[in-house]
Amino acid sequence: MDAEQLRENAHKMVDFIADYYKNIETFPVLSQVEPGYLHKLLPDSAPTHPESLQDVLDDVQAKILPGVTHWQSPDFFAYYPSNSSIAGFLGEMLSAGINMVGFSWITSPAATELEMIVLDWLAGILKLPDEFLSTGHGGGVIQGTASEAVLVVLLAARDKVLRKVGKDSLGKLVVYSSDQTHSALQKACQIVGIHPENCRVLKSDTHCDYALSSESVNEAISSDIEAGLIPMFLCATVGTTSSTAVDPLLSLGKITKRYGIWLHVDAAYAGSACICPEYRHYIDGVEEADSFNMNAHKWLLTNFDCSALWVKDRSALIQALSTNPEFLKNKSPVGAVKMSPPDDVLLRKFVDIAAIYSYLRSLFQASQGNMVVDYKDWQIPLGRRFRSLKLWMVLRLYGLDNLQSYIRNHIALAKHFEELIAQDPRFEVVTPCKFSLVCFRLLPPHKDDNSAYKINHDLLDAVNSTGKIFISHTVLSGKYILRFAVGAPLTEERHIVSAWKVLQDVASALLSSL
Amino acid sequence: MDAEQLRENAHKMVDFIADYYKNIETFPVLSQVEPGYLHKLLPDSAPTHPESLQDVLDDVQAKILPGVTHWQSPDFFAYYPSNSSIAGFLGEMLSAGINMVGFSWITSPAATELEMIVLDWLAGILKLPDEFLSTGHGGGVIQGTASEAVLVVLLAARDKVLRKVGKDSLGKLVVYSSDQTHSALQKACQIVGIHPENCRVLKSDTHCDYALSSESVNEAISSDIEAGLIPMFLCATVGTTSSTAVDPLLSLGKITKRYGIWLHVDAAYAGSACICPEYRHYIDGVEEADSFNMNAHKWLLTNFDCSALWVKDRSALIQALSTNPEFLKNKSPVGAVKMSPPDDVLLRKFVDIAAIYSYLRSLFQASQGNMVVDYKDWQIPLGRRFRSLKLWMVLRLYGLDNLQSYIRNHIALAKHFEELIAQDPRFEVVTPCKFSLVCFRLLPPHKDDNSAYKINHDLLDAVNSTGKIFISHTVLSGKYILRFAVGAPLTEERHIVSAWKVLQDVASALLSSL
Repeated sequence: MDAEQLRENAHKMVDFIADYYKNIETFPVLSQVEPGYLHKLLPDSAPTHPESLQDVLDDVQAKILPGVTHWQSPDFFAYYPSNSSIAGFLGEMLSAGINMVGFSWITSPAATELEMIVLDWLAGILKLPDEFLSTGHGGGVIQGTASEAVLVVLLAARDKVLRKVGKDSLGKLVVYSSDQTHSALQKACQIVGIHPENCRVLKSDTHCDYALSSESVNEAISSDIEAGLIPMFLCATVGTTSSTAVDPLLSLGKITKRYGIWLHVDAAYAGSACICPEYRHYIDGVEEADSFNMNAHKWLLTNFDCSALWVKDRSALIQALSTNPEFLKNKSPVGAVKMSPPDDVLLRKFVDIAAIYSYLRSLFQASQGNMVVDYKDWQIPLGRRFRSLKLWMVLRLYGLDNLQSYIRNHIALAKHFEELIAQDPRFEVVTPCKFSLVCFRLLPPHKDDNSAYKINHDLLDAVNSTGKIFISHTVLSGKYILRFAVGAPLTEERHIVSAWKVLQDVASALLSSL
Repeated sequence: MDAEQLRENAHKMVDFIADYYKNIETFPVLSQVEPGYLHKLLPDSAPTHPESLQDVLDDVQAKILPGVTHWQSPDFFAYYPSNSSIAGFLGEMLSAGINMVGFSWITSPAATELEMIVLDWLAGILKLPDEFLSTGHGGGVIQGTASEAVLVVLLAARDKVLRKVGKDSLGKLVVYSSDQTHSALQKACQIVGIHPENCRVLKSDTHCDYALSSESVNEAISSDIEAGLIPMFLCATVGTTSSTAVDPLLSLGKITKRYGIWLHVDAAYAGSACICPEYRHYIDGVEEADSFNMNAHKWLLTNFDCSALWVKDRSALIQALSTNPEFLKNKSPVGAVKMSPPDDVLLRKFVDIAAIYSYLRSLFQASQGNMVVDYKDWQIPLGRRFRSLKLWMVLRLYGLDNLQSYIRNHIALAKHFEELIAQDPRFEVVTPCKFSLVCFRLLPPHKDDNSAYKINHDLLDAVNSTGKIFISHTVLSGKYILRFAVGAPLTEERHIVSAWKVLQDVASALLSSL
């Protein structure tokens, strides 16, 4: 790791990446390779002798990029977006440059403290209640993904209840969600040992726009209590994956409060929109929640991964996730003392820094491990990267005003796309567009369910194999639905218009071949 | 994300990072800030308007770097190392540039396939048995950390047994380890619901150099079976965190095989050394294991995070960790078909690519979801970064010969440090140095345990607060031990010599003050 060699090679890599962005519209959005393609292009073993950076970059160009599905392409409309930005990219670079492992405060105090600060900033932008701030009993933490976020709060909730009722009651704990809740919850339940028959996946439907109904939650809870089970956790979603449904946080929060159930709000995608005052109402009721999660890496210009999770009771997390082996104890002159240093008056009593250290050490002796935040106890892994840098850089280099405009622009583009669909009688919009996702489908000439399923399935395949755009699908009430998610940073009006043209052309070809 | 703005700003960041490395020896290794320092330096909320990159970089220099503990400093000897390198850094840059989310094959085939290929390469370098290769029923996967690695294999083992004995038997499952096993196992047991009283933490001691004794494992298993419990999982370590102890894989493997227990080998740190033929014997017996893990991000020049995990039975992992919601199904012309495409003879039958797609689609219809690797089902999170790029670049830009020299050099430096200690009668080496960690302590003038504990504790504090070097500690058999871990990429002979001088000087001052 010679500084000058690093400089020279990293400048080359910058140009390679900048050129990639310059040419990004020339690639097929969805990779068109066949499974196993790379195996045929690369040798069977690692080289004995070093190869040159140019050789590697040539291989990236010739062998890797054809196998990449270009999430940053302006014509990427699948799943939900995964935003890259200059600020986010610079933050990743800096984090990789410093390359420290911030499992506890002392391993890099700046990493822990910057994370606390920027998550307080982001909580402020989202107008989350003060109980989620690090200044009280709560706080924010950056998880890798929303899956990890829901897993750690489920663990916190599980152990909080089991401490009361005993660990042999694990088989009685019940978890509530809707059939639109992300599969991450099911995975988390599998991991922590919730019995599958105790996972209440409540049916949502088109009448309530695929939101969870509080009545059905109430009924399920009552009947579970009657059966001797223990209602433990409810996952509400703001902006479901299939269709951006918004569960009614206010009424759900009243129920969970009454029964002492942990309420988690998954706003992985739509949380970003709530930085705009006109969309903030979608998370009204979050004050009743125990935890709240949104992915800055989806739609807030922060490179993957950066999933922001806030909890009101950080001790519940820490009790579920801490271990404290000797070799990791915060041991340093200033390690593991309380979060604010002694006040100035007290400090002035000391004549020199050594005396201050000695005082701090005495505090440390009295209260080891409980007075600084050690994020290792807020997450599954031990080690962690310096991820707050990129979020900090995004917030500073763009500023709230620009971030709000960014969100508003995508929502406007999605509305425009929705209007285009509405003007073509061969298509229908399936759910009204709330954020930047449009759910729609092609109507078959003979309106039976089977041919509707098939024609949309074929339309998806055909559109994606053009390489011009990439969209994904879902199934709602048995209907095969196409999802058009606006949100790539480079997407402009012209991309929406061309995408619609691709869809219309392919649909025409399909319909005429029937 | 304008390509030219990206180019301009990223070049600035390259220079900032290169300058950081140029000056890295001028910083105190261990950050000397007090808790809460950053809160006083940064504003309470995010800015409304954008700020300049120069402002942010000035703040990084003035406010962030003083709070960084410099893991890449050549004078960093704490914990285990976390290697950065030019190749690793370039790989991180490229991965952040492409910024795709590779949860399934189709979201970027290159990401999945390159990961399979480089883990097969690394398995080859480590001479792992063929059963761990992706060509059979096993395969490798990059996890974020060794904690996640042990968690996912514990889940696989848990569910494999529970499928046989029923989920109500969770309270009967027993997990075996030594008191030197990393705390990640304890955390994983908490998460998956292993009862604490069923975690057998077997005592190790100085007679077997802190390795796990197979006799004690045998005895524990017999008595658990007699008590009606179900032995399920054994975690063996090659290179423990406290003192690089090596558990006897061969004899442990025989036991686990006899009882059908899942054997996991945690070689997070020392695994890297096993790329050299002369150290490979430390993992002899790995052919009996069900899973093997080493962290390329510790000591193999791959920036954090890159924890390589191999399993022999990938279906056990997938059964424990898969969910398959509609919106994530591999849907594309070529998605979710088998890992090798139809053979050439077959391909020649088709006249054009559309016909090939149609054939592949028919395969797909028959066998959806089972024929390409979807790494989402091998890990806790859904999303994942393109981490194989950096490992691929490390292996190619350095080549095996250089990587072996790199490891050998660190081990030689550690042996040199051990010799220096042995020459000073005021110190003792506590365990013989096997890899690049030296465990030692200062002997107090009156050789009682309390004063030995205190003087080494004080020596650690005093040495680390000089800022000149950073070392960490552990406790073995009640003794407070200092750990000196060589492994930062920039560490040379002269750093070892100066570090020893710092330790001697501080020890002299401490001893004379008694």
